Order: sequence, then structure tokens, then C-alpha cells
Amino acid sequence: MPSKPPTLLYTDTERSADMLYFGQVDVGDPFLAFEAKGRKVGVVSALEFGRVRRTSGFDLVLPLERFVAQARKAWPRRKPGPAEVIAMAARRFGLKRFTVPEDFPAGLYQSLRKLGLDLEIASGPLFPEREIKTRAEAAAVREGNRCSAVGIAAARRMLRASRIRGGRLYYRGEVLTSERLRGAIEIACLEAGSLAAHTIAAGGNQACDPHERGSGPLRSNDLIIVDVFPRVNATKYFGDMTRTFLRGRASDAQRRLVAAVRDAQLAALKTVRAGVDGRKVHGEVVRVFTELGYVTRATAKGSVGFFHGTGHGVGLAIHEPPRMNAVIEYPLKLGSIVTVEPGLYYPGLGGCRIEDVVQVTAGAPRMLSEAPYDWELR
Amino acid sequence: MPSKPPTLLYTDTERSADMLYFGQVDVGDPFLAFEAKGRKVGVVSALEFGRVRRTSGFDLVLPLERFVAQARKAWPRRKPGPAEVIAMAARRFGLKRFTVPEDFPAGLYQSLRKLGLDLEIASGPLFPEREIKTRAEAAAVREGNRCSAVGIAAARRMLRASRIRGGRLYYRGEVLTSERLRGAIEIACLEAGSLAAHTIAAGGNQACDPHERGSGPLRSNDLIIVDVFPRVNATKYFGDMTRTFLRGRASDAQRRLVAAVRDAQLAALKTVRAGVDGRKVHGEVVRVFTELGYVTRATAKGSVGFFHGTGHGVGLAIHEPPRMNAVIEYPLKLGSIVTVEPGLYYPGLGGCRIEDVVQVTAGAPRMLSEAPYDWELR
Repeated sequence: MPSKPPTLLYTDTERSADMLYFGQVDVGDPFLAFEAKGRKVGVVSALEFGRVRRTSGFDLVLPLERFVAQARKAWPRRKPGPAEVIAMAARRFGLKRFTVPEDFPAGLYQSLRKLGLDLEIASGPLFPEREIKTRAEAAAVREGNRCSAVGIAAARRMLRASRIRGGRLYYRGEVLTSERLRGAIEIACLEAGSLAAHTIAAGGNQACDPHERGSGPLRSNDLIIVDVFPRVNATKYFGDMTRTFLRGRASDAQRRLVAAVRDAQLAALKTVRAGVDGRKVHGEVVRVFTELGYVTRATAKGSVGFFHGTGHGVGLAIHEPPRMNAVIEYPLKLGSIVTVEPGLYYPGLGGCRIEDVVQVTAGAPRMLSEAPYDWELR
Repeated sequence: MPSKPPTLLYTDTERSADMLYFGQVDVGDPFLAFEAKGRKVGVVSALEFGRVRRTSGFDLVLPLERFVAQARKAWPRRKPGPAEVIAMAARRFGLKRFTVPEDFPAGLYQSLRKLGLDLEIASGPLFPEREIKTRAEAAAVREGNRCSAVGIAAARRMLRASRIRGGRLYYRGEVLTSERLRGAIEIACLEAGSLAAHTIAAGGNQACDPHERGSGPLRSNDLIIVDVFPRVNATKYFGDMTRTFLRGRASDAQRRLVAAVRDAQLAALKTVRAGVDGRKVHGEVVRVFTELGYVTRATAKGSVGFFHGTGHGVGLAIHEPPRMNAVIEYPLKLGSIVTVEPGLYYPGLGGCRIEDVVQVTAGAPRMLSEAPYDWELR
């Protein structure tokens, strides 16, 4: 069987978790990296050179400017761009064939083929081993979830300390908005050593759109979804946790809703183990909701009930393989890390989602997240 | 002349400022968007549907699930992925040809061609009009720089309030590290309504690597580069400013270095105007440094002197056209927004960079950033 051609990447580590995994260094602008005779090679500009040489996982770091100069000589009438630089670097190592990821830039793909390189697009993940987390990676995700929990605890404190007046929440005398609550969460995450972006702190009907971040005043007696997924500064691994709160008094219907979501989560967690199809885990959530009478359907304004997947992998990317949903056949692998996050959303009643993170083992999954589940803050 | 085929995008708004510009809504996972008969169409999952329908700039928002179901019927033996969904959506609107951006995913590009779509890869920017900023966009960048200035002011306060003991800085009794200084800056940015990632707060020799973020204790009498580029939550536009500080007493050589950088910046700012080549602006910086005797050269450990571009465009992306450097011919356009950020870096002596942002006019550029230039904090 012919071996896979060496890997070629041209991207930045903001866009590409593969590049982060490959070079183990954060670089904000697109750069070149590839395998040559089993060694990892990075090609960076003077702006990054010293830092990447000192701190990265590359076996060899070469200055971009050298290849730009060579490209200028090779094509005197052309402006040397990434394609020309890659062609020069490939020539230097006697390479003509590469494997590139599915998300390799199409423009560069075409230019490189015109320059005579033979590129094979990986089908599926470029580094399938990213799905199986080492002990150090599991610890990094656990640290991410520690930061999530710090953010969620900040939200809980702020909600608990808020006062109720005319159906609105007031914190230290001022209206408590989604924006203020999110600010408190994100500051707590920063202080814990992580960066939380796109944090969700949405109440009432807003929370019925699962990716709505929330805006404006929060109300008493409303379910408030708090979904926090910070990236740890030191390692770049993510945490991802969700809790749903209510400040005031919950109705019976709200209590049943929250209990159903937690029951579904526990049922799903019991199912997670190596070899089990993600669809089966998802099916457990659907079974619990169905048995309890919660209906899922699409309306003209959007869907109600449970209409997202039960979980996704988390690591250097916030969403990565595996997937656990209704449609994709995906046997869970030993050592992979997944969220388990059922939710129910009914405008008028409100939305609830509860999310934790576990590592898949041969038996019961290993919890990598920890935060209390009490939610009604009277 | 045949008109350009309609635009097709498949990406998320974290990776793609083009998608953000096109749909005017933040979506964290890749989704489909395209032009059809002059209308902007977005195709999103139930997870995003309600929110995108309510808040985006799309003329038409369609549920992903509909096209997945159609694809299942059309190809019963295939797992429907993005390519099949796009093919179904294209059929629905009777479209067969599209323009895609250079960074369109190569894997999807190939799959779509196999499904019979005719894709043209844009050469250069997909939306060249992004380079010319409207009044509202200039205001958004100015707001980004207000946030930058808030972060820089927080750093200044912390440095000024720190005490010197044995060559180290102490703030409120504890060692002042790059990490702590960066934390204070990023919290100030959050409180101002923006998200600052990758902030640079690097002192001494660390600051001589322009993209080194800094780590460990900061020292008195060292030049400390503070580069803050937050993204405004409300608009997603960036600010980008840099100041260099020193807590203690500067040496004559440090004073000359900082004065040279500021002189170079002023000389460059005088040159910025519509129609001028970016290389000419960069050349002014080089001229000032050369006249003052500052040498630029590459060493085995990295470059010293002035070895990066003078400026870059800033908007929905932190780095976007135009560019002002030594190599790229780039006539500045009326209304574009650029950083002007000369720097000098000499290990042993230290690094200094001063960065502001201006909008290009027919005359003197319009300043979009504002913060004091005093830097020696005795």
C-alpha cells in the first residue's frame, strides 16, 4: 500500500486547530508548515522567527524571506506569493507530492497544481489521532472546564445577589442585563487564565434560540441559559459547560422541564462508552424526552423541543469529532472527549440546556467537568 | 463583458470576515451563503435559524434540514454533506456557476465540481469594496481604538503604580508579570465592550520578537511593548494600537530609540494619502531610521532593526488590505483604513513600536486612534 504523501499546511492557528496540533505554537497570520523526511518544518517571517524557533514543536524553522528571494529569482516577472514560496520550499527538500486538509485554500490548491505539485486532499480529518486524547490533553480540557465552572459560578453569584423589582433583576442597583452577566463571566474566565468568547447568557424566549447570546434586561422567574466555552491561554484547549438558572420562583412546568433535561443527560451519560454509536447516545435523550411527553417540531419561526445534537468532541477546536446526533453513524473511540448537552426549548415556557464533558472509556465515562446542578435561586 | 458569477461562501464568521461582511451576523460553525438573483441567501440549521432570520443581513434564510432531506432523496446511498446541500440549494435557484473566495475549502471545491457546479475562484479579495470604509465603518474602527486606548491606559496605570525592587516591578505587593499586565488590559477591554485576544505585553529582549506576547516578571528600566487589538462586540470591527512604556529611568540609547520610532511614524503619517504607493510610506520609515544610523539585518537568531511592514488595513479582519511594506506595490485608496506602526528591535537595548490608525483621505489622513505618547514612567 503506498504511504500517504507528507502533510502540507498553509493557514494560521486561529483558523486551524490542525496547524496548532502540528506546530504547537500560536501564529496569527497564515504560514507554511510541512513534513519532510519525518521532520516537521515551519516557514515563518522575521516577525515570528525567533519566537517560533524557541517555542514551537517544529524540528526545523526556516525564514520565509529566504524562499521569497529564491522565488523572485525563479520567476523574475511574478509577484512571489504563498504558491511560489511553497514551490521553492518543496524543491529544497526534493518533495513533489503532499497531503493537504479538506479546508486547504482552493486558490492556493489550484496555483500549486499549476506549479507542478501533486496534492492529495485528505478525506476526513487530517490528523485522525487528534480525536484520541492523551492524558495531558484530557488534563488540558479539564482545566478548560475548571475555567468554565469559574465563569458559571460568577454568573450564579451575580444572579443570586441580584434583587427583583417589577419582574426585572437589579445587581448593585442597576438593571442586570445579559451583557452585564456575560461580562462578569468572561472577566472571571480571564482571571482564571482563559479566554471566553461568544459566551451565552440568554433568558426567556431568547434562550429558545440555542445560539442566541442574549441581550437586554434579564427577568425574574425566567430560565436563563449560561453556556461558557473558554480556551485556556497556556494550552489552547477548550472547556465547554452549560447550566440553566432561574432567579425567583420557578413554575411547575419549568421544574418539570429542567428535571427532564437532567434526566436525559444522565441517561445519555450512562450510554457513553467506547464502541457505542453516537446515534445511540442521542437516541437515549430522545427516548427520555418522548416518554415525558416533550414534542419536537419545526414551526415557521423556528424549531421547538430538542433539535440539536447531544454532543460533540472538544479539544483544540470547540467543535470537532466525534459527533453524537440523530443522523451520523459515529462509533465512539476510547479516549475521545465529548460534551453531553441535551436541551429543550419552548417559547413562552423557556429554554433549558445542561452540558458536561466526559472522556470515553471502556466503562463509565470519566467526568472532566464539575459544577453544581442546583438552579432555582430564590 | 460577462458578469461575475454569483458569490458562494461556505465558512463560519470566526474564520471569514467576508462571511461576516456578507451576512452581517455572527455564526460560529460553517454554513452556506450565496447570491441568487441579487438576493443574499443564508442556509442554517435549526440551532441558528431563529436568530439569523431575526438579526442577519440575509434577504432570505432557509433551513438546512430541508436541503439535507432533499439530498437524502437525491442520493439515497450517500451521507449528505455540505457538497450535496449546496447542490440542492443551487438547483432550487436554478444556479450552476458561482464565484468562490481564494480560501474556499479545497475539498468542497473538488466535490462541488464533481457534482457539476462550475466554480470560479476569485483572484484577490472577494469583496474589494471591503477596503473602502463607510462613515459607519470608520466609526466602528474608531470605537475599536477607543477600546485599545482603554487597555493601554490600564497598562500605563498599572506600570506607574508599580514599585521597583531589585530590578523587578511589584504591583500591590506582588511581582508584576507580562501575564498580569495583559490580564489587566484584557479586562479593561472587556469592560469597554470588546474582546482583546493575543494582546502583547512584552518587555526587554522578549519585545524584540514583534509577535512574542511576553511572559514572566517585567523589569524596571526595560522597554515594554503594549500592543492591543480588541474586537468590538457590537460591530465585530477591530481596533489596533501600540505604545511602548518604561517604568524607571530610560538610558540615552533607549530615549534615542523611542524618539526615532516616533519620528519615523510622523514622517510616515505625512506621506499617507490617496494614490500614494504603500511602499513609499514604508520607504519614509526606512529613510528616517537609516538617517539616524539604525541598521537592519538578519542574524542566525533572528532579525534586528526594522524588519516588518509599516502598516496594514484593519476592519472586520485585524489584517486586511491594503499593505504598506517594502515589497508590495499598493496604491492607497480613498477611504481605506490603515495602521502606521514602525518599530525598532535590538536585543540588549530593547524593542519599541508605536502604532496608530488612520483613514486615507485626499489630504492629511484622519486619525482614528488617540492615546498619549509619553512613555517614561519614573
